[in-house]
Amino acid sequence: MAKNLTTRQEDYSKWYNELVIKADLAENSGVRGCMVIKPYGFAIWEKMQAELDRMFKETGHQNAYFPIFIPKSYFSKEASHVDGFAKECAVVTHYRLKNDEEGNGIVVDPEAKLEEELIVRPTSETIIWDTYRKWIQSYRDLPILVNQWANVVRWEMRTRLFLRTAEFLWQEGHTAHATKKEAIAEAEQMLDIYADFAENYMAIPVVKGLKTESERFAGALETYCIEALMQDGKALQAGTSHFLGQNFAKAFDVKFADKEGKLDYVWATSWGVSTRLMGALVMTHSDDNGLVLPPNLAPDQVVIVPIYRNEEQFDAVSEVAHELMKELRSKGVRVKFDNRDTHKPGWKFNEYELKGVPVRIAIGPKDVENGTVEVARRDTLSKEMMQREEASEAIEKLLKEIQKNLFAKAANYRENNTTEVSSYKEFKEVLESKGGFILAHWDGTPETEEQIKNETKATIRCIPIEGDTAPGSCMVTGKPSARKVLFAKAY
Amino acid sequence: MAKNLTTRQEDYSKWYNELVIKADLAENSGVRGCMVIKPYGFAIWEKMQAELDRMFKETGHQNAYFPIFIPKSYFSKEASHVDGFAKECAVVTHYRLKNDEEGNGIVVDPEAKLEEELIVRPTSETIIWDTYRKWIQSYRDLPILVNQWANVVRWEMRTRLFLRTAEFLWQEGHTAHATKKEAIAEAEQMLDIYADFAENYMAIPVVKGLKTESERFAGALETYCIEALMQDGKALQAGTSHFLGQNFAKAFDVKFADKEGKLDYVWATSWGVSTRLMGALVMTHSDDNGLVLPPNLAPDQVVIVPIYRNEEQFDAVSEVAHELMKELRSKGVRVKFDNRDTHKPGWKFNEYELKGVPVRIAIGPKDVENGTVEVARRDTLSKEMMQREEASEAIEKLLKEIQKNLFAKAANYRENNTTEVSSYKEFKEVLESKGGFILAHWDGTPETEEQIKNETKATIRCIPIEGDTAPGSCMVTGKPSARKVLFAKAY
Repeated sequence: MAKNLTTRQEDYSKWYNELVIKADLAENSGVRGCMVIKPYGFAIWEKMQAELDRMFKETGHQNAYFPIFIPKSYFSKEASHVDGFAKECAVVTHYRLKNDEEGNGIVVDPEAKLEEELIVRPTSETIIWDTYRKWIQSYRDLPILVNQWANVVRWEMRTRLFLRTAEFLWQEGHTAHATKKEAIAEAEQMLDIYADFAENYMAIPVVKGLKTESERFAGALETYCIEALMQDGKALQAGTSHFLGQNFAKAFDVKFADKEGKLDYVWATSWGVSTRLMGALVMTHSDDNGLVLPPNLAPDQVVIVPIYRNEEQFDAVSEVAHELMKELRSKGVRVKFDNRDTHKPGWKFNEYELKGVPVRIAIGPKDVENGTVEVARRDTLSKEMMQREEASEAIEKLLKEIQKNLFAKAANYRENNTTEVSSYKEFKEVLESKGGFILAHWDGTPETEEQIKNETKATIRCIPIEGDTAPGSCMVTGKPSARKVLFAKAY
Repeated sequence: MAKNLTTRQEDYSKWYNELVIKADLAENSGVRGCMVIKPYGFAIWEKMQAELDRMFKETGHQNAYFPIFIPKSYFSKEASHVDGFAKECAVVTHYRLKNDEEGNGIVVDPEAKLEEELIVRPTSETIIWDTYRKWIQSYRDLPILVNQWANVVRWEMRTRLFLRTAEFLWQEGHTAHATKKEAIAEAEQMLDIYADFAENYMAIPVVKGLKTESERFAGALETYCIEALMQDGKALQAGTSHFLGQNFAKAFDVKFADKEGKLDYVWATSWGVSTRLMGALVMTHSDDNGLVLPPNLAPDQVVIVPIYRNEEQFDAVSEVAHELMKELRSKGVRVKFDNRDTHKPGWKFNEYELKGVPVRIAIGPKDVENGTVEVARRDTLSKEMMQREEASEAIEKLLKEIQKNLFAKAANYRENNTTEVSSYKEFKEVLESKGGFILAHWDGTPETEEQIKNETKATIRCIPIEGDTAPGSCMVTGKPSARKVLFAKAY
């Protein structure tokens, strides 16, 4: 298998597109902007889902399912929400097709026009809060901690596999609380869970922060986010958690009686991550040889490739492979023995390199004789000989090391590509020459934010929660700045 | 909590509707025909998903994801498929809304009309086979064993929670094979998996069989199904597996080169079960007191309710409860300790009865003193005192016994409500008096099938694979019959 992968240096964007397709993660479908997630890509997404779902449940959340369609009028109920979401969307206007009387195949039946158009959900706040009105009467019904795994549709004009597609998969949490304090704590808890997941499973270091007013979710009082840095120096928003205040409760008239019987509107949060994380995963770790997957999310953590010239050798090698596989499985390692006789070892090596399998083991007749195995790491592309008897324990450790190494490498890259600047001139120079994250003072106004965006294409990724909180003066206007904020060009 | 549940005797249909809502499984949404699956209902569905997904993966299937939208023209490619599916469906005609210039809120933007309408998938054969064309060149690419968990939409006019809804959740397997034999074996294997799941997890006995030509899936050469009998004597189709022949491969031009390089069309299957299974689960086991859940699918298998009058008693009871809970959890039992002080024990007893928790344990101060616990079974509503020390082992056994008992009870009901008849007169009498499954000879023609349906509302549920295969003569026409087939009125 010739990889023929464009290098990152040559064309990062092309490298990404090719890799997603060649590594069998996803492909474009016959439907504009909608992707097909292939089995290998979906297996990675399933691993992400399983870990996130466990984290959600451990913090008391339950899954539920709400309709894919939202009546058009629901969007109008929350004023800022409608501007953000009810524009570029898929609109269902009819509920029947019929055979054309003039023989032109099937056509929309004009008599089956809906009284009110239905929108394919771009996000579910409105339909969910319309439902919560029925679920909530008293403080005893609170909190409601619900999550939904679902598909959503936003009619994007320019699409890219995983990063921006018309249909994508995600989870959306929607919680309801008796107090403002509790809702804010929930929004912050979920941000921490996302950061934990990104760093410890995806091996992606993230900056936790708050969005500026102009970048907030439509309908939120505060949007928390995690921001990651890709290898081309561009930022990617990897997850958001919103404190919605009482906006949706007011829009959908959701009140509860407190212990004293006094009525008040319910406080809300919503939070989500999507298949966009697949794009972040690819762009953070992969190299010119293909995918590099962190062991914690790799569908196959270890693959064993037999080397042989005849059946006798194959049998001897297979015996060792099966023993090793058994040992590894007993340690909870996901291992595959690729004993297909339709492909040569070289082809397989290439294939697993392209697909990012963290550890590759080769066993040949000499190894059987010497009691050794050859172990190759995908992250460093280095190889070493191991004693067969020590292999399973060593590989278990190695997987942990690879996981750590990927994170360290990405953290190191981010450190080297985060620059603090003190003037707008310096800001533009850094943006031009090396990109990456830039920390700079900003006066807190949407006007200055807009000006910077128009002049440089860089946006405020977030107001970081941690890090240097010293005040200063805005690099553009010289006006007071509460603290440095994080800029970057972004996906 | 007063249950106020209509009894099955009074009005079976009303009993079902009330129960689904009162037990917090699902409810109707503000969108016509679309349901909200509530957390408790969804937790049961997740258990079903987990078991089925494991069974699919153990037989070599992988999950993937295909677009929710299907271009209208795709449906026209498979002639019989279009008649079956492209009629009552949700049609997306536009991709943008805008603010009305006359101030009437948001309206569909007439300039954003799609060139070709998109159908919200009612089933995915067409979009998937359009994709498989790109995946399949040679026999080396086969078989493809792919499953998808997804939402689908069929515009039903009369809807009922879980049983018939406009949007529902399901899984759809779509496989591609080099030979007819292999495809048929796959379709049969999946039928066996469905039957295994229905009987051993849902505790629902099913009849495996083949659909008659007129009841086949649109586009299939053969439809296999499992049929279950509900407590009102009506049948419910619980799962189908289709041998699609080369129909979709021909419609979408999917050919492969065999080992000799000869080109041939690919052979296909598809198979699915849906949230309809939730309806089957409710209707098979539940009673006038509420849900009855088989332990293998119950989100909580055991609930412990403390009985106490003061804090001291509560502490003593809690200590025992926590110990017992720990023991049960170490045995893999899903157990919950309901220590809420906002509700009385009586309320809780009622609640868990309504929600079908298989085993309820009550522990009071006397029990602490005597080293006992009170154990109540949901299936028989019987109670017994157990020695505290023997409880966890006994409960582990009890859960298995309940699982078996539910199956036995349902199997017994089915046996008592399956009647073999030899004349059309007898057929009508049985149908009128007791309903249930009726085995009778049929001449194999769609005309006779249609006549019986029109005259009695009973349909041929399936041509059973097992059971009495003796030939005879049709109860209606007297013409030769290959074997008795299974009739019933159906959901």
